[in-house]
Amino acid sequence: MIRLTRRAAMAAGTAIGATLATPGAGATRRYRRISVEEAFALPETTAALRRAAGGRPSMQSGPIAGPFMDDLFDLGDGRLAKMDSAGIDVQLLSLVAPGVQNAPADEALALAKLANDRVAAAVRAHPTRFAGLAAVAPQRPEETAEELRRAVGTLGLKGAIVNGHTAGVYLDAPQFRPIFRAAASLRVPVYIHPREPLPAMAVAAVPGFTVGWGYGVETGTEAIRLMASGIFDELPDLVIVLGHLGETLPMLLERLDNRYQWETALLGLKRLQRLPSDYFRHNFAVTTSGMNYLRPLRMTIDALGIDRVLFAADYPMEDQAEAVAAVERMPFSANEKAKLFEHNAMRVFGLT
Amino acid sequence: MIRLTRRAAMAAGTAIGATLATPGAGATRRYRRISVEEAFALPETTAALRRAAGGRPSMQSGPIAGPFMDDLFDLGDGRLAKMDSAGIDVQLLSLVAPGVQNAPADEALALAKLANDRVAAAVRAHPTRFAGLAAVAPQRPEETAEELRRAVGTLGLKGAIVNGHTAGVYLDAPQFRPIFRAAASLRVPVYIHPREPLPAMAVAAVPGFTVGWGYGVETGTEAIRLMASGIFDELPDLVIVLGHLGETLPMLLERLDNRYQWETALLGLKRLQRLPSDYFRHNFAVTTSGMNYLRPLRMTIDALGIDRVLFAADYPMEDQAEAVAAVERMPFSANEKAKLFEHNAMRVFGLT
Repeated sequence: MIRLTRRAAMAAGTAIGATLATPGAGATRRYRRISVEEAFALPETTAALRRAAGGRPSMQSGPIAGPFMDDLFDLGDGRLAKMDSAGIDVQLLSLVAPGVQNAPADEALALAKLANDRVAAAVRAHPTRFAGLAAVAPQRPEETAEELRRAVGTLGLKGAIVNGHTAGVYLDAPQFRPIFRAAASLRVPVYIHPREPLPAMAVAAVPGFTVGWGYGVETGTEAIRLMASGIFDELPDLVIVLGHLGETLPMLLERLDNRYQWETALLGLKRLQRLPSDYFRHNFAVTTSGMNYLRPLRMTIDALGIDRVLFAADYPMEDQAEAVAAVERMPFSANEKAKLFEHNAMRVFGLT
Repeated sequence: MIRLTRRAAMAAGTAIGATLATPGAGATRRYRRISVEEAFALPETTAALRRAAGGRPSMQSGPIAGPFMDDLFDLGDGRLAKMDSAGIDVQLLSLVAPGVQNAPADEALALAKLANDRVAAAVRAHPTRFAGLAAVAPQRPEETAEELRRAVGTLGLKGAIVNGHTAGVYLDAPQFRPIFRAAASLRVPVYIHPREPLPAMAVAAVPGFTVGWGYGVETGTEAIRLMASGIFDELPDLVIVLGHLGETLPMLLERLDNRYQWETALLGLKRLQRLPSDYFRHNFAVTTSGMNYLRPLRMTIDALGIDRVLFAADYPMEDQAEAVAAVERMPFSANEKAKLFEHNAMRVFGLT
């Protein structure tokens, strides 16, 4: 159970109507559609991002140029019309990443307050269609915690959004704890939104999680970099095997394709001959090492086809008896188990 | 289709028997169990790891001490007995990570050859129970490619294993291309096995994949670091929301628990009060932003319960109409869609 209780009556501007608000809703739908990671930008925050980036748009600059800018700036009729057209009843609004986190500290705090006032005004103007999250300025943890209390208690915002690291410092640093403490005491969530990775990503090797997370990050990155390097265009018969059910990539195939097309178009990058998922489905096989668990295995088989998934135990680092027993307990047919346990390994590794 | 064709008759020592070899096999099982990521170590390679690490065991040293060392060194009866007990018919053996990749270049190449000779000998001794992968020394790409040709063509090994970066250089670097070219021309796979992440992990921000992969790595790491910092022991009511269906963590819950227990025990680390998946199930909610795809969504709901999954579109970076249409097409009940689209957002964000 999520332990947040529903907040009792809010101070201002948050009376999300109980009735369906949109033309696209349809007569029989029994629920509203609320979408909860929906971005906006302000001219002031965008100008600050531009200054921080020296005016050069990149994946690191934050959104300072691009076809989406008009939509980001619109907190009124244009946005509502697009929501209507999409059948979205309510947007939970948040300042687009990286928020105010690239700005100098004093400016960042002032911009966060401005963003919170503006989004609260949009919510007041359209209380059945919008709700908002508070921007925070981790550069000033105590003050931004105080601002969060204002944003939730006075402005009626629904939580905080923060975009990963600030000047290279991760959110687990003690200096940021006041923000989380404020959110916890206000009983509102903190939405952690992505931003670009740090220059120094050794942070992924977290004690206790070096294997479970850090290794997968490392190896998944290897696979991604190989793909991006064009190696499978040069060597279309090359097969790469990844352990641990593919280091989470089977979960990401559609997203990789989607964002690859988006990112290469946005930045004018030369494209590979095929989409990432094509390479993954054609040039990779994955094994179950360390991941002999039904849910991720079933999803992986659904994503790749059972012919690409090979049993492995990671002996002696894992208990191989348990690995066998786990797969044997799973509701796969004898034919499917034969593929998992034998036939796929035979084909992929040329075993006789 | 994996494009590797089954290799025709191999030169030596690879006649994996067609009959069931193990007592645990059972009369009705129609297939052998082959497990394909199974590690061994040699005294010589372990000594080299010890020298590279200055004798200090750590997650970065490679396995130079630990309860698994005896099992790693055993390529004979002890290993076979444990396979029998587990019901494993065949192990595909590979030199434990990080292989020879921490050693000086000339030594690495010699050690890789030694490892390949030794594993081939084990396969010759037990041809129905073992097969092997070749170790490589990326420090000497051309020579190790030649050694791979020997390992496959003469020794009968089934492919190559490589453990991520070498001295901080990733596998996509042109200098390593000869290894992949050799594997492709030999029609054998390259198994990329994890090792510890690099000090400089900006490598995860791959052009074209900065969002699809790099962002998820970044944000998943934030979640892991928060968890590891003990924040949820200090603030048990804190709720964190993650987009993109939780940045792959729902796929990893069992593995995170498993490896957390293993890694903290191995290194004698102080443990959190609860297991990683407990925190993830109790202190996190995830949204579908950028991940409105049935397979990962279904797995996420299975892993977390539908009450923890909230609809989001990532407007305007994603097509919100498409996001809505995608979820509406999915085979969830009206009640489930009500939770995804409305009720969960209401509870988590305190919407009214």
